Amino acid sequence: MRDLSRDNRFLSINTATLRRERSLAEVVPALAAAGIPGIGPWREQIQSAGVKAAARLIGDHGLAVSGVSRAGVFTSHGRTGLQQVLDDNRRAVDEAAGIGARCLVLIGGGLTPGSRDIADARALFAEGLAALLPYARSANLPLAIEPLHPMYAADRACINTLAQANDLCEALGPGVGVVVDVYHTWWDPNLEREIARAGAKRILAFHLSDWLVPTTDLLVDRGMMGDGVIDLKRIRGWVEAAGFEGLCEVEIFSQRNWWQRPMEEVLATCVERYRTVC
Amino acid sequence: MRDLSRDNRFLSINTATLRRERSLAEVVPALAAAGIPGIGPWREQIQSAGVKAAARLIGDHGLAVSGVSRAGVFTSHGRTGLQQVLDDNRRAVDEAAGIGARCLVLIGGGLTPGSRDIADARALFAEGLAALLPYARSANLPLAIEPLHPMYAADRACINTLAQANDLCEALGPGVGVVVDVYHTWWDPNLEREIARAGAKRILAFHLSDWLVPTTDLLVDRGMMGDGVIDLKRIRGWVEAAGFEGLCEVEIFSQRNWWQRPMEEVLATCVERYRTVC
Repeated sequence: MRDLSRDNRFLSINTATLRRERSLAEVVPALAAAGIPGIGPWREQIQSAGVKAAARLIGDHGLAVSGVSRAGVFTSHGRTGLQQVLDDNRRAVDEAAGIGARCLVLIGGGLTPGSRDIADARALFAEGLAALLPYARSANLPLAIEPLHPMYAADRACINTLAQANDLCEALGPGVGVVVDVYHTWWDPNLEREIARAGAKRILAFHLSDWLVPTTDLLVDRGMMGDGVIDLKRIRGWVEAAGFEGLCEVEIFSQRNWWQRPMEEVLATCVERYRTVC
Repeated sequence: MRDLSRDNRFLSINTATLRRERSLAEVVPALAAAGIPGIGPWREQIQSAGVKAAARLIGDHGLAVSGVSRAGVFTSHGRTGLQQVLDDNRRAVDEAAGIGARCLVLIGGGLTPGSRDIADARALFAEGLAALLPYARSANLPLAIEPLHPMYAADRACINTLAQANDLCEALGPGVGVVVDVYHTWWDPNLEREIARAGAKRILAFHLSDWLVPTTDLLVDRGMMGDGVIDLKRIRGWVEAAGFEGLCEVEIFSQRNWWQRPMEEVLATCVERYRTVC
């Protein structure tokens, strides 16, 4: 396992950790000032800045882009709305490729509107992914399927386990991989096996946060690493045993705690926890 | 599939649907008055009434006991506290057997105190279950492992999928089975397969409620059947295709809605939804 304690070499911050409404013009210099070499921006931020300006800003500060959040959601407008969603996903590919991202993060999307058929939602996600893949390949931009916690199956993401994501990758071949996010996957009895199955080529991103006890909100009550119950070092060990050598991206949605604090304090805490408990 | 629309023959109500603090003396006559033939009481209620009095009350009203909630939780006091928890579980077996229950419902228990090791919690659950089983067998009382939703993995239940429960059943042999609860399992990509694997002998109980969108609380915001997004008929179809012929037990924890309503209204709604959307 890599030694994280001595420097920030493998650290990246997903900008949602600092509240999503912050601009890249605020966040990028702050990361650089904190000695953090990686960033995981959201599409809205790239769009606000403009792709070229975002790329220049990020490049000028020497940051690597561990991934762009997020696309996919192929189920959101049902089968008849898939083309519209695909158009938006192609724009997402352009944005991610335009800023030199390691990957574009895709989530499943929930049930299609008015439906209770999760198998159908999963089939539609697979269809959308297959349709997007040639475009992403031609842009040389890897697509990274992020399984989200089963508590999001209804309204956000019908892809809920790493096994599902691996199955999709196997069916589709090169150009598509996975995100391993400890928050979404820590409970999974098959996690170690599926991380090994994914392997170095397929694990495109590794996301860090923690599961708080109690958790008071399904969406925006994630914990800072070390404040919860996830065995972070063990999971990182599995990911690195599989050959992953990329950045560790901190992604914390925290309405009641970290989103209330100054950005510098949040970043300093991320650095400290990354070095000590991850 | 059985036709539920014509009568209440296969309906049972878990008493938590009517708020846990109600006594059996209140609930049992209300169920009988509503023409509901089954009850799933909680241990606290049996203890408050006394086992013999509870058995008499339930028998006098002609109710079947689809299951007793709940025991297990072998992880709650760590490995050193297992004997204490086993003692309590043996009392639960006595209580459930004493009122003629179809099964005793066991949940996993969360991480052991101070631990982040979910694999260890799972091992401890298996140990506790194996230790309890001879006692339950001698009481002729089936133990029913209920996998709970992964959002409860940290603090309530380390058994989160039907596959885990089936693995435990296979390892331990007769006397132990599973609960299929739609709320906890509907998202599982392997649900159909694991229900078939469980089969008629192992499926000891089937629990109904619904997943609301949005869900505003992790514990006490379950929906009435039909108010959420779970494909109830499809899952019941799988359960019955596996050979299940038991009662359908409605279990709804609903702080903001159903717990606020008169018992008679809740029961009437359960009956109506059971007949129309389940």
